[in-house]
Amino acid sequence: MTVSLLERLIEAFRVLPGVGQKTAQRMAYHVLERQREGGARLSAALAEAIERVGHCERCRDFSEAAICPVCASASRDRHQLCVVESPADRLAIEQATDYRGLYYVLQGRLSPLDGIGPRELGLDRLVARLGEGEVQELIVATNPTVEGEATAHYLAQLARQHGVRPSRPAHGLPLGGELEYVDRGTLSHAFGSRSEVP
Amino acid sequence: MTVSLLERLIEAFRVLPGVGQKTAQRMAYHVLERQREGGARLSAALAEAIERVGHCERCRDFSEAAICPVCASASRDRHQLCVVESPADRLAIEQATDYRGLYYVLQGRLSPLDGIGPRELGLDRLVARLGEGEVQELIVATNPTVEGEATAHYLAQLARQHGVRPSRPAHGLPLGGELEYVDRGTLSHAFGSRSEVP
Repeated sequence: MTVSLLERLIEAFRVLPGVGQKTAQRMAYHVLERQREGGARLSAALAEAIERVGHCERCRDFSEAAICPVCASASRDRHQLCVVESPADRLAIEQATDYRGLYYVLQGRLSPLDGIGPRELGLDRLVARLGEGEVQELIVATNPTVEGEATAHYLAQLARQHGVRPSRPAHGLPLGGELEYVDRGTLSHAFGSRSEVP
Repeated sequence: MTVSLLERLIEAFRVLPGVGQKTAQRMAYHVLERQREGGARLSAALAEAIERVGHCERCRDFSEAAICPVCASASRDRHQLCVVESPADRLAIEQATDYRGLYYVLQGRLSPLDGIGPRELGLDRLVARLGEGEVQELIVATNPTVEGEATAHYLAQLARQHGVRPSRPAHGLPLGGELEYVDRGTLSHAFGSRSEVP
């Protein structure tokens, strides 16, 4: 029996993260039953984004243009550079904070065991950027995982070598969380880094 | 500021069921970072399915052809007709059971409050089908909700009027479930419909 268009569509939905057979079925049926227009929009948006979205030459974030709007903006503070692992991290910071500096997206993290060193991450471009002398503070916002921490350590050294002040977002208890449910590592770190109540 | 392709893609993903802003972001980034090929396949499959998948003239299920493969198959038992509310229900039955009869997809259920009566469900076609005399058993597999039950009741009457034997899948405790966690309605029904241990 040949594979039907419906089966092919269900299979295709499974490339999305967190989408298994059941969810893919629900998505396919939902689109065909109730959202043909939205589905057509999704199909077009996907094709166009895949075709035309590349990486910004300055910050390596996703961008349609050679230089992304943030890097091109005259209103951003060019003395601060925030290094993140992925475009999603950049977006999260942009949406949650009032940070007005620039970004640099690693598109990964140092992971010697997987053969990902400074060269694979394209850190030479970051080094060149630090050498330009415009950046005064390098905010290292890699993830607080083992590899993220190692990357942060490496980047902080790099910054110091170029006379740039490295900094790290604070780690500790999440706001609104309950002590009881915080993981041990975080709790232990938060306890060790306690500060005097002013 | 104009909406970027990335933002448009994130917005487009939100037509999918159960996909909010965060998930849509994750999907868009995932596709652009790691699954451009899969994304292109998804875009093409979506466009083609939306364009070419219609409804089977016999059973109203999704089909590329005028008559779907199940209705056209010579190996299915034409004396049994299973009525379901949606194509997803049909698929679930097809995948879980060894039912070899035919299907009829209502594409909805009777819901007088929403103005959905026998006419809106296209029940005249089902009536015509019952009148053909080929169907001997009408398996009413609508959902065990208030509206599904009302629909089942109506369909069972319809079947009897045409000398067709109506039946309903058994309701009761789900296999592998624990009594403690079964909802009250199901437990009460299962208790009332208990059968003697042979």
